[in-house]
Amino acid sequence: MKYYAYEDFKNDTKSLINIVKDFQADAIVGVARGGLTLAHSVAEGLDIREVQTLRTELYDGSCKRDELSVFDSCSFSSVKKVLVLDDIADSGDTLLAVMKYLQDKYSDVEFRSATLFYKKTSVYEPHFWINEADDWIDFFWERDFK
Amino acid sequence: MKYYAYEDFKNDTKSLINIVKDFQADAIVGVARGGLTLAHSVAEGLDIREVQTLRTELYDGSCKRDELSVFDSCSFSSVKKVLVLDDIADSGDTLLAVMKYLQDKYSDVEFRSATLFYKKTSVYEPHFWINEADDWIDFFWERDFK
Repeated sequence: MKYYAYEDFKNDTKSLINIVKDFQADAIVGVARGGLTLAHSVAEGLDIREVQTLRTELYDGSCKRDELSVFDSCSFSSVKKVLVLDDIADSGDTLLAVMKYLQDKYSDVEFRSATLFYKKTSVYEPHFWINEADDWIDFFWERDFK
Repeated sequence: MKYYAYEDFKNDTKSLINIVKDFQADAIVGVARGGLTLAHSVAEGLDIREVQTLRTELYDGSCKRDELSVFDSCSFSSVKKVLVLDDIADSGDTLLAVMKYLQDKYSDVEFRSATLFYKKTSVYEPHFWINEADDWIDFFWERDFK
């Protein structure tokens, strides 16, 4: 287990901002909970005022594979390009479901995904990511407030 | 102007968690953008999985005083107590509008507000706050990612 301190986050987030900025997003969507601090930080770094969030719930399917439900109140009037942020693509289930949901629901909008960490076994690879994860990441927001 | 570093935030957020915990919130609502990092951190500290967000937009009224519009997709099924988080009650206009909006829309839910900073000239005093602000606060999330 690797502790991921605020200073690491700060440096990685600045690197991420540097590689996503060419996409020229008009709006940011953060995936709750894990993507909230990152969404806030990237929005400040890129000076994007439009920050929206969504959340997922695991539906415990009794007959079939567990399913993820996505809940959002996003509004993309006059928004063309949206950057979707989460902390990590681990199994990849969340981002796979979120990106499909958003693209289906808002078909006129161009979506790109970005994370701090990506695991090679993930079923989904974000458009932008910084670190490959080979261990469990102990994010500072999961540790520092206990 | 006072720089508010992550270490200050970490200590203050732990203090805030300590005073809000007796309210026993079932869910957290963060006000975008300023309240997003705080909402995430408090949710982790209290182990509350239900984190939702809302955002406000200033409507530039041509004939009357500028008005704040609130946008949310909150869903409070089986939620009784909600903690609303923002970084600062400065003018207080945002939290005043947000709390009125939430209480009107979700009248069965009990809402409490909490901030890191409160300015005595604010038109609204949060139920819980940590520091009195007498200067402009330069929050780390507004500085560290530029």
